[in-house]
This record gives sequence, structure tokens and C-alpha cells, in this order.
Amino acid sequence: MAAEQDPEARAAARPLLTDLYQATMALGYWRAGRARDAAEFELFFRRCPFGGAFALAAGLRDCVRFLRAFRLRDADVQFLASVLPPDTDPAFFEHLRALDCSEVTVRALPEGSLAFPGVPLLQVSGPLLVVQLLETPLLCLVSYASLVATNAARLRLIAGPEKRLLEMGLRRAQGPDGGLTASTYSYLGGFDSSSNVLAGQLRGVPVAGTLAHSFVTSFSGSEVPPDPMLAPAAGEGPGVDLAAKAQVWLEQVCAHLGLGVQEPHPGERAAFVAYALAFPRAFQGLLDTYSVWRSGLPNFLAVALALGELGYRAVGVRLDSGDLLQQAQEIRKVFRAAAAQFQVPWLESVLIVVSNNIDEEALARLAQEGSEVNVIGIGTSVVTCPQQPSLGGVYKLNALFLQLVAVGGQPRMKLTEDPEKQTLPGSKAAFRLLGSDGSPLMDMLQLAEEPVPQAGQELRVWPPGAQEPCTVRPAQVEPLLRLCLQQGQLCEPLPSLAESRALAQLSLSRLSPEHRRLRSPAQYQVVLSERLQALVNSLCAGQSP
Amino acid sequence: MAAEQDPEARAAARPLLTDLYQATMALGYWRAGRARDAAEFELFFRRCPFGGAFALAAGLRDCVRFLRAFRLRDADVQFLASVLPPDTDPAFFEHLRALDCSEVTVRALPEGSLAFPGVPLLQVSGPLLVVQLLETPLLCLVSYASLVATNAARLRLIAGPEKRLLEMGLRRAQGPDGGLTASTYSYLGGFDSSSNVLAGQLRGVPVAGTLAHSFVTSFSGSEVPPDPMLAPAAGEGPGVDLAAKAQVWLEQVCAHLGLGVQEPHPGERAAFVAYALAFPRAFQGLLDTYSVWRSGLPNFLAVALALGELGYRAVGVRLDSGDLLQQAQEIRKVFRAAAAQFQVPWLESVLIVVSNNIDEEALARLAQEGSEVNVIGIGTSVVTCPQQPSLGGVYKLNALFLQLVAVGGQPRMKLTEDPEKQTLPGSKAAFRLLGSDGSPLMDMLQLAEEPVPQAGQELRVWPPGAQEPCTVRPAQVEPLLRLCLQQGQLCEPLPSLAESRALAQLSLSRLSPEHRRLRSPAQYQVVLSERLQALVNSLCAGQSP
Repeated sequence: MAAEQDPEARAAARPLLTDLYQATMALGYWRAGRARDAAEFELFFRRCPFGGAFALAAGLRDCVRFLRAFRLRDADVQFLASVLPPDTDPAFFEHLRALDCSEVTVRALPEGSLAFPGVPLLQVSGPLLVVQLLETPLLCLVSYASLVATNAARLRLIAGPEKRLLEMGLRRAQGPDGGLTASTYSYLGGFDSSSNVLAGQLRGVPVAGTLAHSFVTSFSGSEVPPDPMLAPAAGEGPGVDLAAKAQVWLEQVCAHLGLGVQEPHPGERAAFVAYALAFPRAFQGLLDTYSVWRSGLPNFLAVALALGELGYRAVGVRLDSGDLLQQAQEIRKVFRAAAAQFQVPWLESVLIVVSNNIDEEALARLAQEGSEVNVIGIGTSVVTCPQQPSLGGVYKLNALFLQLVAVGGQPRMKLTEDPEKQTLPGSKAAFRLLGSDGSPLMDMLQLAEEPVPQAGQELRVWPPGAQEPCTVRPAQVEPLLRLCLQQGQLCEPLPSLAESRALAQLSLSRLSPEHRRLRSPAQYQVVLSERLQALVNSLCAGQSP
Repeated sequence: MAAEQDPEARAAARPLLTDLYQATMALGYWRAGRARDAAEFELFFRRCPFGGAFALAAGLRDCVRFLRAFRLRDADVQFLASVLPPDTDPAFFEHLRALDCSEVTVRALPEGSLAFPGVPLLQVSGPLLVVQLLETPLLCLVSYASLVATNAARLRLIAGPEKRLLEMGLRRAQGPDGGLTASTYSYLGGFDSSSNVLAGQLRGVPVAGTLAHSFVTSFSGSEVPPDPMLAPAAGEGPGVDLAAKAQVWLEQVCAHLGLGVQEPHPGERAAFVAYALAFPRAFQGLLDTYSVWRSGLPNFLAVALALGELGYRAVGVRLDSGDLLQQAQEIRKVFRAAAAQFQVPWLESVLIVVSNNIDEEALARLAQEGSEVNVIGIGTSVVTCPQQPSLGGVYKLNALFLQLVAVGGQPRMKLTEDPEKQTLPGSKAAFRLLGSDGSPLMDMLQLAEEPVPQAGQELRVWPPGAQEPCTVRPAQVEPLLRLCLQQGQLCEPLPSLAESRALAQLSLSRLSPEHRRLRSPAQYQVVLSERLQALVNSLCAGQSP
């Protein structure tokens, strides 16, 4: 992997990429003498996206990179000074100038892990002022990355393991970095490759691409290439004028297909020849610029057969309009017939690549049993996540932690009148309880100081809203949050993007079929330990009206 | 405006931020001896977003910045070499190394202009290879910028001119740059400010923000600020212990509201006091952390009245949950009664700020006649454009232009079998035909070589799909595309973001009410000149099956 050579890649993720209220609150904390109070925040989401029952955690590498480089420059501090009250104590700005993440500790769900509502993706602790400032950039780096990885994983589940999925949504993304993030994390979620070259260069994502309609329409047929000759694949023997050779094949192909030899567009054929001269070992035709049946397909076959004579095998055709499944079936038939007719068996298995606004529903059709489609390019619907374009991640102060540690005061929950926005108290640990086949049964949150649950042991746990605890005896127990940064220092090398991708695929394969469904009425359960539930009860009782 | 001081802002928009097929086609063109052929592309969209009848053009400044800096670095060329065939002629890579936009010319719709389907936002001409490579980055920079500006303009139309709109969607954006783009262009589209500090620093967007629930929950009430004293606003006289003063006011407020003095949360009050100490001239309370009526509102009033005694005026309250309109009405009543009771008339007009997943429908309710809401914060629904998360912009080779200029060959349209994907031939000019009141009647596309239409002159034009031309006599004619870059040189300074914002507001105000509607059955017409229509007809006739 050629990843992360370039520190500039995430230049935009820097300290001032934050909401102004983080800076105004920073001043508030500082003025109250609390800038250095110990605090802990948890980043999590409240509902799985897209009506499904799972999400994938992603974005951690970007967070770590951001945190390690976190430092306000002079220009940043000056800008903040220009938007804060003019009589702000200069000592506050000195405090900001000295700020870094050397006292920040982060526990995190590894990238590619399954993530469920309420289970922290990140636990961030450190001085109150600095961990507050981190809220917006961390949410920005985690939320979309996790959303698009989850979206990609759903598309992978629909496509099945055999179809190749190509992400090609850069032009539909929210600007340059949206595109880079989308390409990176759709690969993590299960896509095979991306059209985005920068994602290849900076993140090691495999890149793919061939030609567009503009390439085809740019040729009229009267162009004369400076060097029309192509040497045989084996490197021996004289070169051949590929265009002339294709013209000869065209007559045979048209006779075979029952077409007039003047019907296929000469410009399209010239474009295919030009492409084949540049990519003799990777020739692919885009068939639908003029007419698939009367032009694209015969021109492709003529050039492919001419290449074949020189020992090269064409690799694929692409369709970008019309009924993609139906056309793929018919094109495969034509390939089979032509393979027999011209005695070139490899032609049968030329890849059929399709694209054109493919969403989950269209993908399901293209991936059905018997489909002759091999590669599916998806842009808008992977990148923009149109079914739910944001994850709605939150970053919540662990108020109890703060008060117990810092002040020894009365523990209090944020018991707002909006029950949707309630937050669990206390510094927590999280465990995944697994069955004997390794499939996840439920996630359990408990207080950090409780003993780690043991495999084989019966546990009493509280499902959300339950009146009674239930019991579970997990065959295996997995701690979910790994110590990632300790006092600003990286604790262990982070897995590569490809490793995280493998973890995602493995994790998804172990998830029960009902939780893998795209619209799942059966939500995966996140339960509380008895002690955590008791704490919630006591706080609610203490504060209810 | 403090804009554009920082060249790093769009570091991610660089030459390799492109689809791989642009690079493979580049090699194809080069191998065919056509790298330097003159070519022209047009960037446009085919349908107005969100079911409306207008869009705003945006993203041009980013494009110009990108084009002027366009240059492949050694590492970029090496990366391309690693993904192209190993036997590619090294002269191709030398060609890439020397590439820049010094021969590229761009005409464009100014940012903030109204844009309609089929009318180019950009016309890009120059050597075929380089203008092909520009496709993806230009689409990436223009499409989302225009989409979010249009979305913001719709929200502004719903909100009316009086309500202040704050964009606060950074955490919901597609990564860092998605957030920066969203903040910049929602301002262009008509928002008043953004929470995104970086958009303030780099783009001069006014920034706003105060405090979040975490600030409130971080206080238990037992904290002791190092300096609890606040000097009077006038700067004369002794300082006062603000917390103590607020406590005194709390008793009066609770008596007035009929609450027990122990009901309001002491931590919330401590948070308000801390914030007021830092921002005595800009105090704002977030009311719904615990209970608006039993805690947030009395605590706010106590601190606001204490500040008032020192000559400071609180500026606002914020609500982030529940029925925002209803609460705003009731809070305003409380403010009026308290203003009378405590003889502080300014309290009546304290701003009421609301937020919480506000979409177009919720906004319409909040903006209705008689609403007491003053400021509306919108995040997800402005940034993610959930009704249509991508514009679907396209960048089409002007095939006729290319062939006439470069080869003198047969003009041909891309006459695909998918009528949705047909493209108009020829290098075009575009004009907006206006009525005597300055309102746009229709846009007209014609061939570049046709004479400019004159105001007051009767024109015969072809609406899309019409069997007959119709006539129009515009009172004014506006050329739409301005020469922006000529042979890589900037032709005139680009307007500032604030100027583009003003243009957008002016343009929208002149649009007819039916075209300003959010769901408009009446699409704004884009018509063809007689000569352009004749060219289309002749090409279609020449190529139809």
C-alpha cells in the first residue's frame, strides 16, 4: 500500500475546522478556571443508518492524524481573537497557542468493526477545553466515513461476493475531500476499487478506469495516428496496422451479425483503435455512444478480434445507458456465438461492466442469479448516501465522569425533556458478547470500573427500556474499545486500510442474517450491565419531576 | 473579507483528484497524436435540483484557483506510471510533466447567477488532453457548490428576508472539505452566517456560535471561578460577583414565574454565569439542557437581569428540542411580562434562536406570520441536500467544435439511443432575455458565430421539443458567459464571495414568482436560436436510424 505518504492529504482537517461555539465555550471554560479539568467525551450514534441494523466504524486513522498534528498556528489564534470579544484576556490566547493533544487519550472501536447505537466509536479524555474543541472535527471525520463505509457494505451485501464493485462518485461528492473520503471508505466497506486517482495515490485504494463517451465522440474516423502499427503480444514478428486489421475484421463481424458494414460509426471504431494502441493488453470498449447493436458491439468485436490475431485479449465492454441487465444477457450471447464462429474461446468471458445511476434496487437486479454482468460502477448512490445522507453522530460529555473526577460533586445526567436526547452516565467499557459460532449476540455497556465479563459466565443484563433484566451466557467476550492514543502517543500501529477492509468483511460475515438485512425490524441489542442500569435508575429517580 | 489568504485551503483539489479514465484517455489521445488538438467542453446540468425551476451557479473561484495552480508533480506522474501499462512510451510522461493550463480558456456564468438546464456553467477550451483531464475536478468543484448554494437559496426563500439563517452542518458534511464548501456556498445562497470557523478564516464567511449542552452539563454548580467579579458595562464603579447577583435575581424571577427557587438547576446557572463572565456583551442561554420552563428560562432570566443591572444586555436564548415555534411564542410572552415586571424593556426583544433538524417544512412553520423565532440554525438539511444530494452535472465534449476546428471532418452529434443523454452540437453562446421589468423571460442558446441578439428586436426561437418556433421581443438581453481565463490568464478580478451573494439575492428577487416556487411545474424555458435548431435537425436527420 502506497498510503499516507502525503501529510497534505488532510490539510483541511485542522483545528479551526470547528464550530465557533467550541471556541466560545473554550473561553467560557477558561474564564471559569476549568480549562484543565479532566473530562471525557463519547462519540456515538443513536440509530443505525438506512433503516438497517448495523454500521461500520471508520475514520479513526483520520482522527489520529488530526489529533497528532493538532496545534493552533498564530494566524488561527489571531483569527479567533478577531471574532471573540475585544477585551478578552490575552492570557486565554496564550493558552490556545500552547494547546496540543499531548494530554489527550483516545479509546476507539477499530476501523472496520461493527458499530451499534450507543456504543462509543471514540472515547476521548483529556483537559476539558481541548477535548471540547475536538468535538466538531472528530464528528466530521468519523460520521461521514462510517456512513459511507456502511453504505458500501450494504451495496456489497446486495452484490454478493462475486461481482466487482467500482466506486466512481468523485464528481458527485461534496468537494474534493468529500470525494477522497468517499473513495477511501467505500473501499473499506467492501468495494473493490475506485476511479479516484488521488485515493490510489494517498490511500492505496486500487484504482480503475478506461474511457468515456467524450473519448469516442472526439474521433470522426478520419484521424491518422502517428504510429498505427502494433507489435504482436509475444514481441516477435512484424507490427500490424491495427486500424486496417480491424477494418478487415469488421466485414466478417458485420456479416456474422447481419449488419451493413457501413453501419458501425467510423469515429467510434477509430476511438477503439486509438485506445487499443495505448492499452493493447487492457482493451475495453464503451458500447453505447451511438448504438450498442449497430455500432458499439460490432466495432468492439472488430478491434478485439484484430487484437486477438496479434495475441492480445480484450478485457471488457462497458454499458452506461438503457436496460443494463437485459443488454448484458444479449451481449453475452453474442460473445458466445462469435467465440464459436471465429474460434476465439476467450471472447466468451470478456467482462461486462455496467454503470448509470445504480442504486440498491438496481444493483439487486443486476446481481441476480444468472446475470451476465461482471463489474458494476456506482457513483452517486454510494458517495451521497441518498437514503440517509448523514449519520447523525453525537459527541457527549460524560458529565458524571467529569464531576466525580474533577469536583467530587453530585452526579447528574442530562435529563432533558426530550427522551431521544438522553445520554448514559459514567465512564464506560463496552464488550461484544459472542455465541459459540463467533456470531455477535449483543453488545454490553458497563461502568469502566466493573470487572471484565468472562466467557461462559452467566450475565444479568438490561435491554433498553426493559422492566426486568435478562440473562446471557456468552461463549466469547470481546472488549470493543482499544487504547489508541495515550497522552497523545500512539499506542500501537494502526491497521492499514486493507486490513480494516478485511476486518469489515469478516465482521459482516459473522453477523446473523437477520441483522445483516438491509431493512431490519430486528435491531441488534445493546444492553446495560446491572450496575450501569442501577446508576441510570438512581439518577433518573433523583431528578425526575 | 479575510478571504483566500491561504493557498492550502484547497490543497486537496489537485490534478490527481480525477477519475482514472481521464488519465487512460489522456494516454489514448496522446498515442493517437491528438493530445494538442483544439477542443471545447461544456459543463452543465440537465434538470434543476429539488424539483424547483432554478439553480444558482457556484464554485467558479475554486475552479479558477485549481486551474491556475494545475501542474502534475513528479510524484503524481510516478503514480500514474505505476497504474498505466509498464511499456507506455516515456515521452507520454514527459508530456504530462510539462502540462499546465496556460493554453486553457474558460468562459463561465458568474457565481451567484441563476443557472438553468442545458446552459453551460463553464465552457472550457484548450488542448484536448488537458481539457479532458480537467473534467472530474471541475465537476467536483462546481456541482456540489451549485447544489448547496441552490439549496440555501430555497431555504432563504422559505425563511423570508427577516429571519437570520445560520449554517451549522460541518459535522454532517462529507469530511473536512465538504464542510468548508457547504459553509462557503450556503452563505453565497443566502444564509447569514456559519458556525464553521475555517470558512470564516479562509472565505470571510461571518461566523456565529455560543454554547452547547456539554458546556451546561459540565457544571455542577459547586465550581468556584477564579475571578467571579464583573465590572459594569460603562467601565466605572466597582465590580460585582455575578453569581451572587444572579442568585438574588433568581428569587425574584422564581417568585414572578411561580417556581420554587430550588427548581432551576444550579449547574446550568453556573454555566450561564461562566459564559456571561466571558461574554458579558453577548450573553446567550441554551435553555433546554434540563427543562426549559423549570430551569433554563429562570436561570437565563436571573443571569440576564444580573447582567442588566451592570448595564449589559443579553442577546439571545437558544432552543434545540421540542416544539420550537410553540416554545418561542411562550418564551416571548414570558420575556414581555418580565420586561414589564422588572422594568427592563430590552428583554422583550431578546433573540430567540432555534435549531434541531430543521428541514424545509419545519422552516416554513417557523417562518410563518407571527412567529417569534428570530434566528434559525440549520445543519444536516442544508449541507447534505437530502432531497437530492447531487446536482448531476455533466461535462460534455463539444464534438462538432472539435471536428470542425481540428480535422474538418463530418460533424456528428452524440446521437445515443438514450434521448436523455443527447447533447447539443457546436460552440455556443448563451443569452438571458429579460422583460421590461428586468425579470428573466427565457435563456437562449445560439451558435457562437451568430450575431448577438438585440434588445427590442423580435427573435424566432425554438422551445425544447417544439414543432414550431415562437417569437419573443426581449426588452433587455444579457450575455451569460463571461470570459474568465484566457490562455490561462485571469481576465478580470473575480467578485468576492459577498459580491456573489449579493448577485444571487438580486437575481432571485427578479425571478418570476412561478419560477421561484420550490416545486415548480412551470419550468423556466431554455430555447435554441433558429440556426442552432437547424443544425440539430440536420445532424439528427443525417444520423437517425
